[in-house]
Amino acid sequence: MKAAVLFKINKPLCILDNIKLPRLLPGQVEVEIAYSGVCHSQLMEVRGRRGEDRFLPHMLGHEATGVVRAVGDNVSKVMPGDKVILGWIKGDGMDVPGAIYDWNGTAINSGGITTFSERTIVSENRLTKLPVGLPMDLGVLFGCAVPTGAGMVLNEIEIESHHSVVIIGVGGIGAISLMYAKCRNPQKLIAVDVRSEKLKVATALGASHVIDGSRNDVVEQILALTNGQGADFCIDAAGRTSTIELAFEATRRKGGQCVFASHPEAGQMISLDPFELVNGKNIKGSWGGDTKPDEDLLKFYKMSVQNTLPLESMITKRYDLESINEALDDLEAGVVMRPLIEINPALNGK
Amino acid sequence: MKAAVLFKINKPLCILDNIKLPRLLPGQVEVEIAYSGVCHSQLMEVRGRRGEDRFLPHMLGHEATGVVRAVGDNVSKVMPGDKVILGWIKGDGMDVPGAIYDWNGTAINSGGITTFSERTIVSENRLTKLPVGLPMDLGVLFGCAVPTGAGMVLNEIEIESHHSVVIIGVGGIGAISLMYAKCRNPQKLIAVDVRSEKLKVATALGASHVIDGSRNDVVEQILALTNGQGADFCIDAAGRTSTIELAFEATRRKGGQCVFASHPEAGQMISLDPFELVNGKNIKGSWGGDTKPDEDLLKFYKMSVQNTLPLESMITKRYDLESINEALDDLEAGVVMRPLIEINPALNGK
Ligand SMILES: [Zn+2]
Ligand SMILES: [Zn+2]
Repeated sequence: MKAAVLFKINKPLCILDNIKLPRLLPGQVEVEIAYSGVCHSQLMEVRGRRGEDRFLPHMLGHEATGVVRAVGDNVSKVMPGDKVILGWIKGDGMDVPGAIYDWNGTAINSGGITTFSERTIVSENRLTKLPVGLPMDLGVLFGCAVPTGAGMVLNEIEIESHHSVVIIGVGGIGAISLMYAKCRNPQKLIAVDVRSEKLKVATALGASHVIDGSRNDVVEQILALTNGQGADFCIDAAGRTSTIELAFEATRRKGGQCVFASHPEAGQMISLDPFELVNGKNIKGSWGGDTKPDEDLLKFYKMSVQNTLPLESMITKRYDLESINEALDDLEAGVVMRPLIEINPALNGK
Repeated sequence: MKAAVLFKINKPLCILDNIKLPRLLPGQVEVEIAYSGVCHSQLMEVRGRRGEDRFLPHMLGHEATGVVRAVGDNVSKVMPGDKVILGWIKGDGMDVPGAIYDWNGTAINSGGITTFSERTIVSENRLTKLPVGLPMDLGVLFGCAVPTGAGMVLNEIEIESHHSVVIIGVGGIGAISLMYAKCRNPQKLIAVDVRSEKLKVATALGASHVIDGSRNDVVEQILALTNGQGADFCIDAAGRTSTIELAFEATRRKGGQCVFASHPEAGQMISLDPFELVNGKNIKGSWGGDTKPDEDLLKFYKMSVQNTLPLESMITKRYDLESINEALDDLEAGVVMRPLIEINPALNGK
């Protein structure tokens, strides 16, 4: 089977054929991939910004949809023929290490989940059945972008109608956070981004105010919109040290909460004023929006239907597996919200 | 009446006589002080490490005991003759601004509470009745050191018997945190300090392990004591950026909590690895141990009696009001746990 493999950091992924899958271990599941997403985590890994990769050559990818083709011993969550969401956030089921694939005698490593291939071997706990009615292309978003983006605003904080909410960075995660935050009808929903076209997206998605993030008075503007107090909740979805620090600064004292999930390059530190922590500002790193896939994915999907959230607008460009390096470049350049890799779209129709 | 007043930062306090009290405003209470404490907050203020003081000349002090002598309109919490604890943490009652005193025509400012004087005008909400049985000298600790130190380990975190707890800095606050943490019988109670005599205090107070904070392998030692995981709770009571960062580093991932209350000089920032926040380490600044004086002070006192906590060992040196600058110097040099200023000890006997 075909896969896009990282052989060397800072180099394009290699598109290889004739990769052989090993025998399934207990708790492992073989899935035929329909679609895979590409997110900043893979971009960081490929570009070497997560530090050294000790697993080269290495399979990548952590959000996808597909159809189960075989299950290892003791797998009880899915069975062959099931349409599934593949995501990196651990749910119920066995947690087993990644498979080692064979490419003409070369061992290729993988983790508990990888998705840049026609077939993949995944740990049972990274699979959730695809909700009925959710197309497989849209379903990809439920592997990483939706649980992280929706989870940050639904699981990590409790937005009420008198609250002010700031979303920094209107990429895939930020736009989804914005949509789901909007469902809670906060009094103010303020989006910040350095690109004017992203601010247009934010307005279309229901932001009450947008702020050009390239200005140096972003905090002042947020203070002006919040009676000088700062926002009740500041979500950083841009994943830079400067934006996390900005989110913390724009959070109100006495109970305000700053949340972020995407984190910068390995080793980069954030700088915070400890007195502001004593003053009751809170900061929290979010592990995948604290999402429990087995309960939350269906809930997030239903919410998207009830509120007619335009999740499909996240998929602005589609690629085939051979073009995956272009998808990485586009993501880095910020010209695509959430690249979708079409590996076997025919599975969607079956 | 006599008071120790800050006229200029980085200069000794001036001991002045003939200061006149203004008429009480609604919500204000006049108290005759028996004893006052001196803590790092005053040291920071006097030494100019809290930034510019816009209220010079300025009365200082925020933990004391005394006897109520007069009450302003609408004060319902205390009446003349009541023995009270004066503390900076707001409780029930009116919250009113500080009085302006007169010294031969010079206006001397104060806040909602000051204590370095024979008499003081305090906002009603900074007063709590002295628990029956608590001597007035020990009672001073209940104005700042006990609520902060006990509150950090009883209100901000929930220590159970399988937990590991680290206390960094065994000064007044740290020693009190240690005593009260010990009441919860954590599996490991690890004290860190750069002074060997403070580590002896820690052992005497029930620390299961002590670590010399001047070594550069403090984090490694904590990891070695916690199965390589880091501690469930790390309390920084040293109030430096380096010790707060150390506490965060030594906290375990996936739910560990770092807490600090004392904060460094104005403008000094702490540096944190955002990935560790995403990994589930938590950091919290504590506002006076999140203590509600009206409920918690009596509770903390009863706990000290039931567990025979040696709170009196915190008071290692007594000074009269004229020697308050010596108390500040001793505190800065680390040669006294919690200086006690004896202003009118006779009140204790009445
Ligand atoms: Zn992702
Ligand atoms: Zn204090």
